Amino acid sequence: MSSEKSKLLIFGCGLIGGSFALAAKKAGLVELVTGIDSSHEALETALQLGIIDAAICSTDSAKDYSDKLDSVLPASNVILVAVPVSQIAKIIVDLFRRGLPKNCLIFDVGSVKRKIIEDVHSGLGRLPPNFIPVHPIAGSEQNGPAAASADLFLNRTVVFTPHPETSESALKQLRELWIACGALVSELDGVRHDQILAATSHLPHLLSFTLMTWLDKEHSDEVFDFAAGGLRDFSRIAESDPEMWASIFEDNARNLVPQVDALLQELLNIRMLIEKKDKSGLRKRLLDARNARLRLIKKIGKA
Amino acid sequence: MSSEKSKLLIFGCGLIGGSFALAAKKAGLVELVTGIDSSHEALETALQLGIIDAAICSTDSAKDYSDKLDSVLPASNVILVAVPVSQIAKIIVDLFRRGLPKNCLIFDVGSVKRKIIEDVHSGLGRLPPNFIPVHPIAGSEQNGPAAASADLFLNRTVVFTPHPETSESALKQLRELWIACGALVSELDGVRHDQILAATSHLPHLLSFTLMTWLDKEHSDEVFDFAAGGLRDFSRIAESDPEMWASIFEDNARNLVPQVDALLQELLNIRMLIEKKDKSGLRKRLLDARNARLRLIKKIGKA
Repeated sequence: MSSEKSKLLIFGCGLIGGSFALAAKKAGLVELVTGIDSSHEALETALQLGIIDAAICSTDSAKDYSDKLDSVLPASNVILVAVPVSQIAKIIVDLFRRGLPKNCLIFDVGSVKRKIIEDVHSGLGRLPPNFIPVHPIAGSEQNGPAAASADLFLNRTVVFTPHPETSESALKQLRELWIACGALVSELDGVRHDQILAATSHLPHLLSFTLMTWLDKEHSDEVFDFAAGGLRDFSRIAESDPEMWASIFEDNARNLVPQVDALLQELLNIRMLIEKKDKSGLRKRLLDARNARLRLIKKIGKA
Repeated sequence: MSSEKSKLLIFGCGLIGGSFALAAKKAGLVELVTGIDSSHEALETALQLGIIDAAICSTDSAKDYSDKLDSVLPASNVILVAVPVSQIAKIIVDLFRRGLPKNCLIFDVGSVKRKIIEDVHSGLGRLPPNFIPVHPIAGSEQNGPAAASADLFLNRTVVFTPHPETSESALKQLRELWIACGALVSELDGVRHDQILAATSHLPHLLSFTLMTWLDKEHSDEVFDFAAGGLRDFSRIAESDPEMWASIFEDNARNLVPQVDALLQELLNIRMLIEKKDKSGLRKRLLDARNARLRLIKKIGKA
């Protein structure tokens, strides 16, 4: 970033948008944050918590919203789009059509990257050099501005998935901004990002949601009296925002669906071992799982 | 319990056996704990940590083991069988064949109850009134005596699944013993217990193991660099002991296999919604899951 402080504009004052604003403020990098959200309540909370300094509600009259946005855009240096993945490309396309300051950085934080890049490309007929697709591998089953924290990204991996047109100088500036927020910045191709995240994030979320949907449908709540830490930890991510995750599942369907099919096959294999009472085959599978878990926590820690 | 302190004999000096011994000692209810285990190392650790006061190794020569066991049985007041479920019934049958003191309580802590009760019945031709099947809904992915804690059962549900021949006085004595260890004692029919636990414990364990087996098989460890709290919590239970869980899955196959099939169907339904881009159908499923999760933690707490 230049030595001057930035004016930050955030679309979506939830957990991620709010936490980035707080972290950038804590690092002394921004002087003014304008927040845009569809919820008056979220904006009010974000103002009260000092996350944002000015608010624009996107569900006010179209003209009102448009006028306010146009008045704030020319002075913006950094724009963060932190809304559910299905709405990201539309907002980015709209912003470039309205016209952005020449050196304004714009990045999204969606959990799926390839579809956003494709949709921005098809909406604008080009990929702007100052648009950088980003995914912070941080989060929580909690959401909304009240859950935001200046420390959310501390020592967390933040993945940049630059497209072919992304400018080196925009990348460098945004990298410095994230590093100042405490993050560990790494880079992946967008296609590879979506394959990996399907396996490490989208699939566990889908399994956790599925078990809870099934328990809800097939069992009475009496069964919860006999649940313990296993189900509690397993189901934590099923508390995540349904709207946000329905978007993620849909936008990464091309990776998620084949991976669900492969996992179903593995589940059928293990089911067969149980039915056949093939204990040594079963034990081997569980041991492989345990070893993978141990390698995982060696990399990312236990808590 | 009578006002005299008890002599406790535990088979299996692991997390559950060790924690019960520590809790009973802390409550001032036992004066001597003899531990039996197949591992010299576990016995040594249990002695050093003050979990047990005397040790018998079950993998010493058969005669040696048998002589030592016969010498300790006549003075035992309470016997806890805390070994993997597949070995429990065999030990209980052996103990009754050797002969137990008239008022000695004997209970197991296996996670599957019906098969143990059936196997004891078929082994002895009867169900002894002083044998009480028990399942403490407490545990951890950790195991071995080093993980044992006097507080493991504090405010945890411990389920008794008495069989038709269980004596009321044995039940009452054992209930008092567990309550003194801080546990909340409840009662279920053994058949119902196994159905409920298949849903709330065995199935989440199976899904957690399956995802990790599949990640281990299909992906390189590079993917773990892009994992976060979601996968970490989801996979915690995949760190559980493979031997113990292979036994549980096998011994509760009659409930687990049909529940896996029902869950597979639900997973296929959700997969279909993703593939068809039926976002409102998907959102509805995820919302049901989230609501079930919220009701669960209302009952059992968040941590």
